[in-house]
Amino acid sequence: MRDFLPADKARRERVLAVIRERYRAHGFDEIETPVMEDYERLHSGLGGDNEKLAFAVLKRGMDAAAIAAAGDPAQLADLGLRYDLTVPLARFYATHRAELPTVFRSIQIAPVWRAERPQKGRYRQFVQCDIDIIGDATGRAEAELVTATLDTLDALGLEGGTIRINDRRALEWMLEQFGFAQGERPGVLITIDKLDKLGPAGVTAELRERGATSAAVDAFEAFLRRPQTMEYHPYGERQIRKALPAGAPDEVVGSLVAIGDAVGAARAGAAPRPGGIPLVFDPFLVRGMGYYTGTIFELAHPSVDYSLGGGGRYDGMIGRFLGQDVPAVGFSLGFERIVDLVSAGEDAQVCAVVLVHDRDVPVAELVALKAALVADGARVRLEQRTKNLTALLGRAAADGYTAFATVSAGHTPASLDLKPLS
Amino acid sequence: MRDFLPADKARRERVLAVIRERYRAHGFDEIETPVMEDYERLHSGLGGDNEKLAFAVLKRGMDAAAIAAAGDPAQLADLGLRYDLTVPLARFYATHRAELPTVFRSIQIAPVWRAERPQKGRYRQFVQCDIDIIGDATGRAEAELVTATLDTLDALGLEGGTIRINDRRALEWMLEQFGFAQGERPGVLITIDKLDKLGPAGVTAELRERGATSAAVDAFEAFLRRPQTMEYHPYGERQIRKALPAGAPDEVVGSLVAIGDAVGAARAGAAPRPGGIPLVFDPFLVRGMGYYTGTIFELAHPSVDYSLGGGGRYDGMIGRFLGQDVPAVGFSLGFERIVDLVSAGEDAQVCAVVLVHDRDVPVAELVALKAALVADGARVRLEQRTKNLTALLGRAAADGYTAFATVSAGHTPASLDLKPLS
Repeated sequence: MRDFLPADKARRERVLAVIRERYRAHGFDEIETPVMEDYERLHSGLGGDNEKLAFAVLKRGMDAAAIAAAGDPAQLADLGLRYDLTVPLARFYATHRAELPTVFRSIQIAPVWRAERPQKGRYRQFVQCDIDIIGDATGRAEAELVTATLDTLDALGLEGGTIRINDRRALEWMLEQFGFAQGERPGVLITIDKLDKLGPAGVTAELRERGATSAAVDAFEAFLRRPQTMEYHPYGERQIRKALPAGAPDEVVGSLVAIGDAVGAARAGAAPRPGGIPLVFDPFLVRGMGYYTGTIFELAHPSVDYSLGGGGRYDGMIGRFLGQDVPAVGFSLGFERIVDLVSAGEDAQVCAVVLVHDRDVPVAELVALKAALVADGARVRLEQRTKNLTALLGRAAADGYTAFATVSAGHTPASLDLKPLS
Repeated sequence: MRDFLPADKARRERVLAVIRERYRAHGFDEIETPVMEDYERLHSGLGGDNEKLAFAVLKRGMDAAAIAAAGDPAQLADLGLRYDLTVPLARFYATHRAELPTVFRSIQIAPVWRAERPQKGRYRQFVQCDIDIIGDATGRAEAELVTATLDTLDALGLEGGTIRINDRRALEWMLEQFGFAQGERPGVLITIDKLDKLGPAGVTAELRERGATSAAVDAFEAFLRRPQTMEYHPYGERQIRKALPAGAPDEVVGSLVAIGDAVGAARAGAAPRPGGIPLVFDPFLVRGMGYYTGTIFELAHPSVDYSLGGGGRYDGMIGRFLGQDVPAVGFSLGFERIVDLVSAGEDAQVCAVVLVHDRDVPVAELVALKAALVADGARVRLEQRTKNLTALLGRAAADGYTAFATVSAGHTPASLDLKPLS
């Protein structure tokens, strides 16, 4: 967990404001849920591996006897900090459905917590920016999510984002074709998810190590060796069919093609790019969460080799809370990764003034001078003069101040001699 | 703890943006700290009664044996959710002092948590908006805080705020004059703090019940009966001396007067008001926290009979973390109370369009139409036509949409017939 100093905090707030504004322009509405959810809801199996990383909140009023009587953490805790924004959203939707539009497009911009072991680039508190569309089973929802996400990246100066896309149903069908038994498929997917890291040979080796059906691994290996398997461009029906084993189900291919057509049409006004539309079909994209039921995606950007976000369709999940299935699909931006890529930038052109005053200027004069400049639209900091004026002004410039004036008793706003800070 | 639906969330974000912008204009810089602090730090005696209300976070990896071995919550928890923003700020300043300006003006806008019993208007998660000035022992700091706070209220359309002000040193001196023994003064202050609720007779009755020094209670009672004791206007040296027992220390009176002069000068440009400057000296203002050492204040507003915020000087606190005393003074706005007072207002004049489309409009056409309008600066929501168009449009208008168009296949942005939503 980290502290954020003024320069970092200001940059984070600027980036959040852009994300919020763009998502709102695309017809999404922001909601907020409490940081704590019921312990049981957080551990109901919907959160996958993240459930193990949830911080648990101790019941209040536990005395020594109650503690001794409790066998395990589940007896000690009644609440926990959320580890993602999807479980709270499902609970929120189930609670407030009657007050929401039929198709509900939500924004959630909020911190989540995971008790990860400390390591570089992993934080135990971090911000996620999620958009979700609940109540739309068509590819329109996917197209809106992808378009809003790419537009937001553009607005942040991160043009050139690419969405890797796949469909869980295509993955399932493919594993069936190769001959993997139903029961072993979740484990096989975990290994396939490492294709980027291990390469084809590493993946098949790990599958054999796992003891996966040998003939199926052979078939998969042969498939990986086909030259066209790793040709992901250009996006379209022909390429999707080429990248999959022959005979892929029309419904799944048609869904992927329709999303591509829609994103292509929506992005017609964006800067043209080499690969055509910013979608790449990746038949080996897995995404970890078990609750995905259809389309899955991940956001790539040429400046980094890790993903900046991802999401997918989870049509079964809200039913767990509501007792009635409602289609849903979401996209989550990894805010911490994105904020690192956005250039420091500057505040909007506000005149930011440091008033360097002598020690003997009466407080009332100083504060009145400041108030008058603030009323005129400036941002104003008072600094008592120190011996090292250069250091004082350098620090103020680093903090974003653009001008300074020295103040003696009797100065008025009009009599100030404002000088630019380099 | 509460969920916030879109309309409430949008209003909260609008109010936060105003507060953030005004505080920044006054030369304050925003920081952020993690929501969790070390359990021991939260229970070091600096948080007063709030320490008892802290949510405790269970240590990770506790098994049955470890739980059985733990005698009390302090053995089970290593972290806790912050109950205020002052303890984290003191820790932050002690950690990062070398990277901060000599006089550091901080903004913190963030949630805090208290395990209160559920009751109307009290929440277990709520947002505080704190500004603090660290490193300035002069009344300039108080004047800057008060001015920034009143300016922020004005910007929110809540003109007419008044700051009730007192000084802990005046209170201490007064109790000494009446003859209360050092040891009983904290309890006496708890009772005096109820003057608004109990009235003078109730307060003296409770003091006698407490067993406070009888002669001192008599002296206090006589003092409360003086006609001039409850005359708080107009603010200035004469009135402050009249409201206190004779012979009040010059240093304390001088400090209160200087703050008034500075606030008066800074507010010269604000709308004139009946009482002159927006300060009221209240010799019986106590503020609960034990860590206050000098000026204390509370924000009152004519539209409500409870305080909207408050703060004070706590010169000794940072020394607890730093091992070296640093002067500090802060002001905290109660965001939940303020947001309730701000009128719903409207978004900035963005054209917000609902596209009501037939079921058969191709997804690509729809999404492209939406993207084109978004690119032109509009906020756009897609809605599939339902039988009850009036209900659909009414709901969109309630969500802030200002125009609509019906869309059939083949529409372009130019061919849309945009109609206003009432």
